[in-house]
Amino acid sequence: MKDPGIGSRARVRLSGAPASEDAVVVEEPLALTIDGERWLTVMRTPGEDPDLVLGLLFAEGCIDEARDVSAIVRCAEPDDPADVLDVRSGPGRVITAPPRATLSSSACGVCGRERIDDLLPRSRVGTGAVARSVLRGAPARLRPHQPRFAATGALHGAALLDDDGEVLAAAEDVGRHNAVDKVFGRALREERLPRAHVLVVSARGGFEIVQKAVVAGVDAVVCVSGASSLAIDLARAAGLVLVAFARDGDGNVYAGEDRLG
Amino acid sequence: MKDPGIGSRARVRLSGAPASEDAVVVEEPLALTIDGERWLTVMRTPGEDPDLVLGLLFAEGCIDEARDVSAIVRCAEPDDPADVLDVRSGPGRVITAPPRATLSSSACGVCGRERIDDLLPRSRVGTGAVARSVLRGAPARLRPHQPRFAATGALHGAALLDDDGEVLAAAEDVGRHNAVDKVFGRALREERLPRAHVLVVSARGGFEIVQKAVVAGVDAVVCVSGASSLAIDLARAAGLVLVAFARDGDGNVYAGEDRLG
Repeated sequence: MKDPGIGSRARVRLSGAPASEDAVVVEEPLALTIDGERWLTVMRTPGEDPDLVLGLLFAEGCIDEARDVSAIVRCAEPDDPADVLDVRSGPGRVITAPPRATLSSSACGVCGRERIDDLLPRSRVGTGAVARSVLRGAPARLRPHQPRFAATGALHGAALLDDDGEVLAAAEDVGRHNAVDKVFGRALREERLPRAHVLVVSARGGFEIVQKAVVAGVDAVVCVSGASSLAIDLARAAGLVLVAFARDGDGNVYAGEDRLG
Repeated sequence: MKDPGIGSRARVRLSGAPASEDAVVVEEPLALTIDGERWLTVMRTPGEDPDLVLGLLFAEGCIDEARDVSAIVRCAEPDDPADVLDVRSGPGRVITAPPRATLSSSACGVCGRERIDDLLPRSRVGTGAVARSVLRGAPARLRPHQPRFAATGALHGAALLDDDGEVLAAAEDVGRHNAVDKVFGRALREERLPRAHVLVVSARGGFEIVQKAVVAGVDAVVCVSGASSLAIDLARAAGLVLVAFARDGDGNVYAGEDRLG
């Protein structure tokens, strides 16, 4: 089946090579409604929309488990090119979406210190040991799960590993926060979240990535690129192991070094 | 003077090397108000806040020139760690901020096709020729203006070039859209925007980057990494030259090839 996350566009080369078709990452808007009420629109790579929605609702604290959602229904309107998904609350549940402004992807809504303090009560981060070997091997575990990156060179990847380093869920997206939402959403749907030990991302570790990891309760985040000051501060406050510049079997541990085993 | 965009955090190495201090990119929230009314909070790298604000207001269509803003005032509150900036409308002007949900950084608010059609009336993209030599040399022009990246390995850079390939403005930020807002804001403030010919970014070319370029009216966007389907479609609709994977003096031209000179 054709991957909806990969498109094709003609291109020439600056050096003058003739035109050819090139695989490019698909970026398309997805409008979300909750029980019919408009919530927000995200730009994403199509293909794992229900997982993206579940993960986003979970990260924002709107749901705690997959059964809080009874169905995610695609609402196609004639002549409307937009993808619209409606999230239906599960039995006895009324999902309340946070105001859009509090979505971490664009705006934290409040100052950093308050936000870290606000987040800690929602933290599910554990306290056990984290094996260095699993952290060192994490980027290599992610790589085989980046077929869209291999085809287009322009997507972020994310994967959840268990404490043996085995991949529980993996996803790719044009937005790194979406890739993370997708893996948490999938793990939630397949009830694998309790086994999630390490989140590995192909990208940098910004505040919003660590925030999602803290809420989901993994023990470590491994980033192939750098980490920001606020991401480090949040990881330290939550007791999360944070590794950045994870390359060639090594990496910088900016937080949680007392948990390394 | 110490760069507020670069912080320091202790780290160890996974391989067991002892702890040392490491330069890390600073990510901090910045709350924005317009004439005292709360607008939104962005996560950004501190250091060029007024340029960031000007560029964001410009990209969102809230202002057309720097004089639409009479002042950007820092509001420090005791015991409040957050940075807050108030934008004051210029004489005879009342700046009206768009609802937060329409901010392109997280959500386009409407479907892709409508958004492209909506954007075209605001396009300032020209029609003249764009020299291949300037496009091929653009990444090398950006590189000397990435000192924070050199120090931390974890920021996005953006620069505006004139038609000789000279740098008119350059900036770095933990968010690539912020880096782009900063360069457009600075060019606006210094009245160099009419000479802006090429926007070069160290990152991928997503929809929101091309959107800002279309509204600002450059002739070309050069991305060191890949471009998304929607970014390509918008560039084509607006007549903008879009180059991605710009490396080693070459690159893929996905839009506007008829303008290459």
